Amino acid sequence: MTDQMTAVQYGVGPIGSRIVRAGHQQGIEFVGAIDIDPQKLGRDLGDVAGCNESLDVTVTDDASAVLGPDIDMVFHSTVSSLQMAMPQLRECLEAGVDVISTCEQLTFPQYRHPDLATELDQVATTNEVSIMGTGINPGYAMDFLPTVLTIPCHTVKSIEVLRVQNASTRREPLQRKVGAGLSLEAFEEQIVGQEGHVGLTESVAMIAHALGWTLDEITEDVEPVIAEAPVRTDYFEAAVGEVAGMAQRGVGRIGGTTKVDLQISQYIGAPDARDVIQIHGDPSLMLEIPGGIHGDRATPAVVVNSAGRVRGGTPGLLSMVDGLR
Amino acid sequence: MTDQMTAVQYGVGPIGSRIVRAGHQQGIEFVGAIDIDPQKLGRDLGDVAGCNESLDVTVTDDASAVLGPDIDMVFHSTVSSLQMAMPQLRECLEAGVDVISTCEQLTFPQYRHPDLATELDQVATTNEVSIMGTGINPGYAMDFLPTVLTIPCHTVKSIEVLRVQNASTRREPLQRKVGAGLSLEAFEEQIVGQEGHVGLTESVAMIAHALGWTLDEITEDVEPVIAEAPVRTDYFEAAVGEVAGMAQRGVGRIGGTTKVDLQISQYIGAPDARDVIQIHGDPSLMLEIPGGIHGDRATPAVVVNSAGRVRGGTPGLLSMVDGLR
Repeated sequence: MTDQMTAVQYGVGPIGSRIVRAGHQQGIEFVGAIDIDPQKLGRDLGDVAGCNESLDVTVTDDASAVLGPDIDMVFHSTVSSLQMAMPQLRECLEAGVDVISTCEQLTFPQYRHPDLATELDQVATTNEVSIMGTGINPGYAMDFLPTVLTIPCHTVKSIEVLRVQNASTRREPLQRKVGAGLSLEAFEEQIVGQEGHVGLTESVAMIAHALGWTLDEITEDVEPVIAEAPVRTDYFEAAVGEVAGMAQRGVGRIGGTTKVDLQISQYIGAPDARDVIQIHGDPSLMLEIPGGIHGDRATPAVVVNSAGRVRGGTPGLLSMVDGLR
Repeated sequence: MTDQMTAVQYGVGPIGSRIVRAGHQQGIEFVGAIDIDPQKLGRDLGDVAGCNESLDVTVTDDASAVLGPDIDMVFHSTVSSLQMAMPQLRECLEAGVDVISTCEQLTFPQYRHPDLATELDQVATTNEVSIMGTGINPGYAMDFLPTVLTIPCHTVKSIEVLRVQNASTRREPLQRKVGAGLSLEAFEEQIVGQEGHVGLTESVAMIAHALGWTLDEITEDVEPVIAEAPVRTDYFEAAVGEVAGMAQRGVGRIGGTTKVDLQISQYIGAPDARDVIQIHGDPSLMLEIPGGIHGDRATPAVVVNSAGRVRGGTPGLLSMVDGLR
């Protein structure tokens, strides 16, 4: 699917770099790279992305210089906020290039940002290209895969997903983001109210859309996970009673009844990392992936492996659950 | 997706009847029914299919009388052999109707019946309709779902699927088909060489197609599962040492290396029914559905829930893995 495909990488941060390495490994020819970091400008993309070889592509901050209709795909990985990503995405679409982005709010923007969703759909359609947001979460583990598991069910009453990630195996910024090593007071001050993991609301809305449910509300909340034994990583440590990480929950309801209940716990020292999906219906089904799907490793794979879907898709704004049922 | 959809049921046997009940429950309006069984002709579809209510549709053996471009979908469920199903499928497509069929060999006919696949694709395209074969197996558990599980992987070395079904919970014909209660000699005589479960080859070929692999060969074999304790169902019993059922295996290889290894064990008294999928790659992933997905119950759900995909699909011959990656 990725043979002889040309691509531009828009954003060469930790995830963007992984996309470049994964795409390069699969035979994608990167012909341009965009970033605003002065430390990266003018350097070779292979060097910046850690490819161990030159890609003969210089990182630039001038998107217009590298975007054009001869490019097959832009892999976009800059920010979680769709509002902030809009000018970048618009420029790609208007240049006539398909886009896959890890922007979490783009995975299903119809709920939180209906106006931006409509605009993106129109711009993409006008330029006869497609745009989709994806990644492992949101994009796969807590929305696409649960929807896939409803296909053998006659009726679905409700859907529960539990994703437990051992933050010890993740990047330092992720460990910091989930509050590893903080006191309870510091967690309340520094973490609660922050955005935390972005995308639970999008995942809830995506599932509801796929199942044809009109939700009355979607709520999100966050709680600390307390260390029950001392735990130490390369970057942080938590004593008993201190914070090991966070548990975040997104719930979609119809008339007070929970229809979609998504929980993600990310904490250091988690002994039981896993992805569990429960469909309550006829028949009820439970799916477990022991160990879970690793976020940092899997996101670039989902992005690169979705290239065929987006290139072959109808023009406009796409989502991972399109056509599933 | 199925609101205000009109459909014709082609074949009102055990699976066809379940499709009618499932579709009716989801709001599909059945406006015609075709069968050749004299016991069913002239009777109301609701009666034949066990709907507990009339559907105001009379079962007929005259397909031309009920097929027409005003029909949204034909649910086709007659035979496993694509060769035998061809005249029926051709008639549906030429009448301008989309088709979803449980014909096992239609789930991925490009391998075993490339000429028929080409013909169906051409007839469907000419008539601007779509046709797809699906079901729980082949169609979902051992091909679609394993392909879905490869999406988070950078590389895939090989794929193993193990599906264990407790035949005690299945229909009498299924228990008979797997050889429950036979002696080893009778199994060798009556079961080995019969077609058994149809579709393993199609599932292997479908996965390989989705992953871009060109297999050198696909082989199938069948072995008896021997009762280790006495087991009895409503229909059969097996003493210790007698046959409880069968284990069937389909393997796809490239240059002697196993790339796809699908095993389905169907036997009475199976204590550990489950679906297990293992992706060997980067990362390796394992997925388990404890209890497994029930074949008879899930097939009609997969069929009905695929209606939106087929109606919205591009004209031609479709497969469940289209657009997945």
